[in-house]
Amino acid sequence: MGNSFGHLFSITTFGESHGKAIGVVIDGCPAGIEIDEAFIQQELNRRRPGQSRITTQRQEDDVFEILSGVFEGKSTGMPIIITIANKDARSKDYSHIADQFRPSHADYTYQAKYGIRDYRGGGRSSARETAARVAAGAVAKLYLKRFKIEFFAFVSQVGPIKAPHYTTLDLSLTEDNMVRCPDPDTAKKMIQLIDHTRKNRDTIGGVVTGVIKNMPVGLGEPVFDKLHAALGGAMLGINAVKGFEYGSGFEGVKMNGSEHNDEFYKEGDKIKTKTNYSGGIQGGISNGEDIYFNVAFKPVATIMQDQSSINKTGDEITVSGRGRHDPCVVPRAVPIVEAMSALVIADFLMLNQTSKLR
Amino acid sequence: MGNSFGHLFSITTFGESHGKAIGVVIDGCPAGIEIDEAFIQQELNRRRPGQSRITTQRQEDDVFEILSGVFEGKSTGMPIIITIANKDARSKDYSHIADQFRPSHADYTYQAKYGIRDYRGGGRSSARETAARVAAGAVAKLYLKRFKIEFFAFVSQVGPIKAPHYTTLDLSLTEDNMVRCPDPDTAKKMIQLIDHTRKNRDTIGGVVTGVIKNMPVGLGEPVFDKLHAALGGAMLGINAVKGFEYGSGFEGVKMNGSEHNDEFYKEGDKIKTKTNYSGGIQGGISNGEDIYFNVAFKPVATIMQDQSSINKTGDEITVSGRGRHDPCVVPRAVPIVEAMSALVIADFLMLNQTSKLR
Amino acid sequence: MGNSFGHLFSITTFGESHGKAIGVVIDGCPAGIEIDEAFIQQELNRRRPGQSRITTQRQEDDVFEILSGVFEGKSTGMPIIITIANKDARSKDYSHIADQFRPSHADYTYQAKYGIRDYRGGGRSSARETAARVAAGAVAKLYLKRFKIEFFAFVSQVGPIKAPHYTTLDLSLTEDNMVRCPDPDTAKKMIQLIDHTRKNRDTIGGVVTGVIKNMPVGLGEPVFDKLHAALGGAMLGINAVKGFEYGSGFEGVKMNGSEHNDEFYKEGDKIKTKTNYSGGIQGGISNGEDIYFNVAFKPVATIMQDQSSINKTGDEITVSGRGRHDPCVVPRAVPIVEAMSALVIADFLMLNQTSKLR
Amino acid sequence: MGNSFGHLFSITTFGESHGKAIGVVIDGCPAGIEIDEAFIQQELNRRRPGQSRITTQRQEDDVFEILSGVFEGKSTGMPIIITIANKDARSKDYSHIADQFRPSHADYTYQAKYGIRDYRGGGRSSARETAARVAAGAVAKLYLKRFKIEFFAFVSQVGPIKAPHYTTLDLSLTEDNMVRCPDPDTAKKMIQLIDHTRKNRDTIGGVVTGVIKNMPVGLGEPVFDKLHAALGGAMLGINAVKGFEYGSGFEGVKMNGSEHNDEFYKEGDKIKTKTNYSGGIQGGISNGEDIYFNVAFKPVATIMQDQSSINKTGDEITVSGRGRHDPCVVPRAVPIVEAMSALVIADFLMLNQTSKLR
Repeated sequence: MGNSFGHLFSITTFGESHGKAIGVVIDGCPAGIEIDEAFIQQELNRRRPGQSRITTQRQEDDVFEILSGVFEGKSTGMPIIITIANKDARSKDYSHIADQFRPSHADYTYQAKYGIRDYRGGGRSSARETAARVAAGAVAKLYLKRFKIEFFAFVSQVGPIKAPHYTTLDLSLTEDNMVRCPDPDTAKKMIQLIDHTRKNRDTIGGVVTGVIKNMPVGLGEPVFDKLHAALGGAMLGINAVKGFEYGSGFEGVKMNGSEHNDEFYKEGDKIKTKTNYSGGIQGGISNGEDIYFNVAFKPVATIMQDQSSINKTGDEITVSGRGRHDPCVVPRAVPIVEAMSALVIADFLMLNQTSKLR
Repeated sequence: MGNSFGHLFSITTFGESHGKAIGVVIDGCPAGIEIDEAFIQQELNRRRPGQSRITTQRQEDDVFEILSGVFEGKSTGMPIIITIANKDARSKDYSHIADQFRPSHADYTYQAKYGIRDYRGGGRSSARETAARVAAGAVAKLYLKRFKIEFFAFVSQVGPIKAPHYTTLDLSLTEDNMVRCPDPDTAKKMIQLIDHTRKNRDTIGGVVTGVIKNMPVGLGEPVFDKLHAALGGAMLGINAVKGFEYGSGFEGVKMNGSEHNDEFYKEGDKIKTKTNYSGGIQGGISNGEDIYFNVAFKPVATIMQDQSSINKTGDEITVSGRGRHDPCVVPRAVPIVEAMSALVIADFLMLNQTSKLR
Repeated sequence: MGNSFGHLFSITTFGESHGKAIGVVIDGCPAGIEIDEAFIQQELNRRRPGQSRITTQRQEDDVFEILSGVFEGKSTGMPIIITIANKDARSKDYSHIADQFRPSHADYTYQAKYGIRDYRGGGRSSARETAARVAAGAVAKLYLKRFKIEFFAFVSQVGPIKAPHYTTLDLSLTEDNMVRCPDPDTAKKMIQLIDHTRKNRDTIGGVVTGVIKNMPVGLGEPVFDKLHAALGGAMLGINAVKGFEYGSGFEGVKMNGSEHNDEFYKEGDKIKTKTNYSGGIQGGISNGEDIYFNVAFKPVATIMQDQSSINKTGDEITVSGRGRHDPCVVPRAVPIVEAMSALVIADFLMLNQTSKLR
Repeated sequence: MGNSFGHLFSITTFGESHGKAIGVVIDGCPAGIEIDEAFIQQELNRRRPGQSRITTQRQEDDVFEILSGVFEGKSTGMPIIITIANKDARSKDYSHIADQFRPSHADYTYQAKYGIRDYRGGGRSSARETAARVAAGAVAKLYLKRFKIEFFAFVSQVGPIKAPHYTTLDLSLTEDNMVRCPDPDTAKKMIQLIDHTRKNRDTIGGVVTGVIKNMPVGLGEPVFDKLHAALGGAMLGINAVKGFEYGSGFEGVKMNGSEHNDEFYKEGDKIKTKTNYSGGIQGGISNGEDIYFNVAFKPVATIMQDQSSINKTGDEITVSGRGRHDPCVVPRAVPIVEAMSALVIADFLMLNQTSKLR
């Protein structure tokens, strides 16, 4: 149930943070796609822990293995399973929390729901699970390449520090700095804030903006499976996400319709809109303009400070911060947001094949 | 596909704004629930057009009929179908838009996706569809009554005018004014703004806040079907919604973890948190605290002003505002937000029956 | 859950035998199909009760109404809802069974599972529900017409009387007699047997053979959703069905591989098989040959004789036969088998659009 | 899509016959089940190739590994992934068929559907995939143990040789002989026939009978997801299956209703039926009596004889039998039939938790 995503291009992820491996089964991937393993690894590297001083120091090379579904370099239409071994799992760092409920973690709710939990490194609730999504998203990107659809995500906010609107930025610069903000000045300030926060043994939240370019017209299903509903559900399923908005978003509520409406015009053969408060989606269906959206991430719950809490038997305890964690999750969240975007778009592209007689 | 919602408590809606009827089939509703028809009607009346001067003047009494699944006043476990006839459909008001693409409506994208569209009153893309959700949500509420789970939604923002945080409000006052804001002073200002906007032949956006009280612990599925991901996806599927945030939401990104973390304590036998930035959901699973979230609605796209656009054949045209529409959609969105909330919670309550051996 | 069928071309049926109406919502029907209402009615007439002396004498004209999803005669891609009113429901005929469990009916199991049941005419468990499937199947047939796929079902066995293999028959003769067997001599014997059985106040079983011609190559999904698994599941979901076999079926188990294997050869540009024990499906995927299968129907459980049973309170009782029923269900099952076949093929045709890069 | 099975207790299998590994992800398994690895291995051993002279001589020890979802010996509610390495894959045995379409195999249809196929050992279409189902079925059995539900499958027919009805047999004897028929005399004849067939370089079909005892009342969903429809669909998804019947099955069509109806009586507190032509399922819902059904398997398509066929470029060719294969598939199909039964029952048991208010 909860570990699968997608209708036609569908994935199921598995694995715990400190188990033997994590991974993903992709079912429904069309046959004939060239599976570029170097590209998949490159995507995983963008999410990998230990990549810079502002991320967790856990060392995982996140080398993956494909066990099925690819033959002579191409997808066969059969399920593709990708596994990633867990190597630098220091489970003993976690034995002290076996009976503790860390504040704002999933410890208490998992224990209550399941009556048992793999507490090591947060088990299944660890963000380590998202590596599996990035691998699957890379396959989705390889599929979508032939349609020229492009995915850009970047860090647009850390704490109170915000980058300018995406339309004013050169999104090709995102990977140029460790915080993944394409505006160099803002990036510098963000890094300073994260450094400062880490030294305070604290954490800070942030926003990742996603942009999808060269969208075909017509993706999205009416009523419940509107394209933005699928994107929003996908983003809200990423660990630590607290909010999603697309196009004008929460700011748009302050506008009048006369200002907010995107008037149509024609550019050559193409139907375009003069403004894009719609965020590329109208009536739940893509209109060909850029899709853009913001995803809010809370400050990471693991902090290197003492906090009061309770344990399984209901005693009041002090939880002290240990383990290796990110002071700010958004730089590593960038490839995850792209991956989930690609998974949604691949799925809805396939769903759209049968919308009308052709 | 796109017209169904839910896994176990699942609904399928149907119908166009100016067709014969709209309605919903509820499949998976447990047997034995007393189907209180007066309550269902009351919920529909809260969403009904023409209920006040700040809503559309279309007159629909929205009287419903149950054709199946109820026997001697109780649900039988069989599909419950509820139909609502369309009565005051002035389709001729719409003949002028048969070939026009109204700005920021679904006209263009539906035409492109399907090659055909029922343009009358927006067809399937009309918010009239949401009456079916309210009816289904009422049945979900009847089911959840026995678990004491309560749903409160209210208007927390119109344009720039915001109500205080829900914890400071008496939510029983929501229905006391036509804008559905439980803070009387804020309500007055909101109504003034909507009146002003309507006189300007314009529209304005707003925010509906949803609150769920007396939540059981343990609802929500790991990874992709986190409870807030389901709630967010549900809300984003409502017409005109541009954003969703829960708990600390977008504001939470500015906080430090040391401030944002919700420390656990014990109150009698119950495990509680001192603060509730988590919004009642941790690791995607309810922790028993209040769930609360915000839903952003854009200004209604239909305005009583001329706008430039293009038509089906690609000519530049002027679209002039006609028809009957809401100057601000949020007052009528309140029962819709509650309905979608109830549908999600009913579904996840059922899903949770098998999380562990009992 | 249990009232929906299909992945992309998906239907949800609703309604009880003696409720206000029965019907179906079709979700996922491609836009642009001409909805030929006369054809839908004609299909319903083939299933309709009271059509001949060997069917139940209940009189239902089964006139249907489409409430949504069709505009100017064509499907719009929106949900199509079709309702059929119940007119000749003599519920008082059934009041005597309110507390009785009729042998080999669904009375006991529904009561045990749901704790409540609409006993009138068997409620939801009545074969009346299948009218909804026939209506939906007619829409699927209208979609499949453009692919030239043709559906033939006929009665191949009543009690011990069997028709010859379908390849020796002229399937265009099926509708020429009231038992729907295209072999006139066999048909005559079948009718005699049914007449005889009815006079004995008894019932008899039979077999419907389904044949699908002009199948495209490539329909069917590997492993669990093999085309014959989907067809078999669909047929077994029809009331009174006890078995399904395709191609060589149960007889095939006696054969050697050297005899049973269908050798390939080429006929012009087409790849064909010399024999067709595979029944047109290899590895779960259609190979372009005729699909053919048998569906076994048990003798109808309602007989005009006294039977011993128990009631809700556990007392031993005598159940006496009343109501109006079919002495043999297979003649009316013919259009149902075709309808379910068409629904499966439409769904798998759509699923197959994304099997490979195109 | 096609590689997943089940609604709540759901599995996704992956892997090709000669790839690195095959396996299964189980999603939705309740937490708290003791995962007895020795039992899983024992089940796999029953299906393993090379176990006797009447099965294929491919040697695979089918040792499995659990990578996730189990902690301290118990299921955690998280996805359980089980992998089984391929060891004795002699892919070079298959290079000669890279371009050939073997009669009655999946070669042609896979090639046509996907445009590419992993031909080694039949790739994904190989019955090797069923090992993954047996592993998952073993976990389902471990779950169902606490409900005392028991699964018995056995070989009831090989070629024309049939065992007596299951009610006259001691099903505990099934594992006592290599053909898995609990009637020793019949078993001897079956083994002789298989030996004879193998020496003729040929293959032969057979029937596996499944029996489920100690069934709870109430499993099965109305209309499309009748319990026997789910069982039938599950069985028809097993490689080489050509037919499914339950209860009276195809023989029942010859009976009169007066003979076929199962009259109810009371035994102590329990409601029982005097006969069981219903096969333990009425109206699609279990009634507590034994469920029993037959599954027809065709003769294995790989024979050690020359056959004429065509290749990818359309030339007429001779396919000569090579590789290692079973002369009769039914002995090894016994644990597969049990596994699919257990998966269906586990799923429907979970689905039934919410049928009514409790």
